[in-house]
Amino acid sequence: MTSGSGRPATPRSRGRTDLKQERAVRTRGQVLDAAASAFARKGFPAVTILDVAELMGMTKGAVYFHYPNKEALALAVADEFYRRLGATGDTVRELALSPLEAVSELLTRTAVAFRDDPMIQAGARLQIERSLIEADLPTPYVGYTNLVESWLTQARDEGQLALDTDAEVMARVLISAFFGAQHISWVLSERADIAERVREILDVVIQVRRVG
Amino acid sequence: MTSGSGRPATPRSRGRTDLKQERAVRTRGQVLDAAASAFARKGFPAVTILDVAELMGMTKGAVYFHYPNKEALALAVADEFYRRLGATGDTVRELALSPLEAVSELLTRTAVAFRDDPMIQAGARLQIERSLIEADLPTPYVGYTNLVESWLTQARDEGQLALDTDAEVMARVLISAFFGAQHISWVLSERADIAERVREILDVVIQVRRVG
Repeated sequence: MTSGSGRPATPRSRGRTDLKQERAVRTRGQVLDAAASAFARKGFPAVTILDVAELMGMTKGAVYFHYPNKEALALAVADEFYRRLGATGDTVRELALSPLEAVSELLTRTAVAFRDDPMIQAGARLQIERSLIEADLPTPYVGYTNLVESWLTQARDEGQLALDTDAEVMARVLISAFFGAQHISWVLSERADIAERVREILDVVIQVRRVG
Repeated sequence: MTSGSGRPATPRSRGRTDLKQERAVRTRGQVLDAAASAFARKGFPAVTILDVAELMGMTKGAVYFHYPNKEALALAVADEFYRRLGATGDTVRELALSPLEAVSELLTRTAVAFRDDPMIQAGARLQIERSLIEADLPTPYVGYTNLVESWLTQARDEGQLALDTDAEVMARVLISAFFGAQHISWVLSERADIAERVREILDVVIQVRRVG
């Protein structure tokens, strides 16, 4: 980030500004992590700004300095949720796997994140509580569905998958089953069995159509 | 219902009591319908007893006469939700379809109910908001999964289904996909496309394994 002044800052003043900015960015990230833990555990309606402040050992004022209200916090957590899901997609793409392995890797990594990462748990919970939140959360499901569809299409074109139906339909069913399974796993077992549930989905939907 | 007295009531007094009881039962049902509409539209945290009373043109006191608090209303709606799902299973069983047709009929009828019946919509919504409700809702998903598993097993035993995996696993994937699809359809299109989404799930999971 630059200071906005056209003239370069002196080393000393730049050092101080940078330090302050770094600290502000770090605190903002900590507020977001605390909010994620609170939303994941209690849900949007039950969380207060005081909960978030107490999780950080800060005052409410310190939280308000970074986020004007609970809706802004929820929106920031939801944005970070989608950023991390997008980053998972990017990471899997960079692994240069076969397209079917990529689908499997994406859903498995995402399942583990749903089980272990409070930011992802919070995002998923805010997503199902979206109608209780007075803020426009990003549209869910569409990004993942498109990514999975592109891999299934590639797998079909490369002769690894025998498709009896559209790749788009199969992608929609996979994402529906994934979303449903992680939710049911959350309700029945705090997501302890989510990795196993996702393996079952991949078996039932993909394995039966795999060629060779 | 009996009066609790050992001595038979006179025809006249029994007539009056029955009438009063009938009216009470009817009103109780109307309160439940109003609560379902309110929960379906606004979600548990946002609904007040006043909302329910106003939907019926009654006072809050009239609602409290039947249900002591909002949690009791939510529990009664959830119970009715599961009763109707169970009744859908019973109805499909009585149709004496082939087991695969029965699975298809069950999920299709349930999809239509999720789209059209406020009691079902309310039950589904309370189910995903269950951690915000201080009452023990019934355990979800298990009844349907068991029913579908029994039909898939029967279809395999009768040679209509080639199973490459356990019937239990396939049933779990079907119910996960159904639950996920109805939720995604709710978020993206107010469930307008739910029947089509369920047909896709049946195609992708069952059609590919159908024999003959």
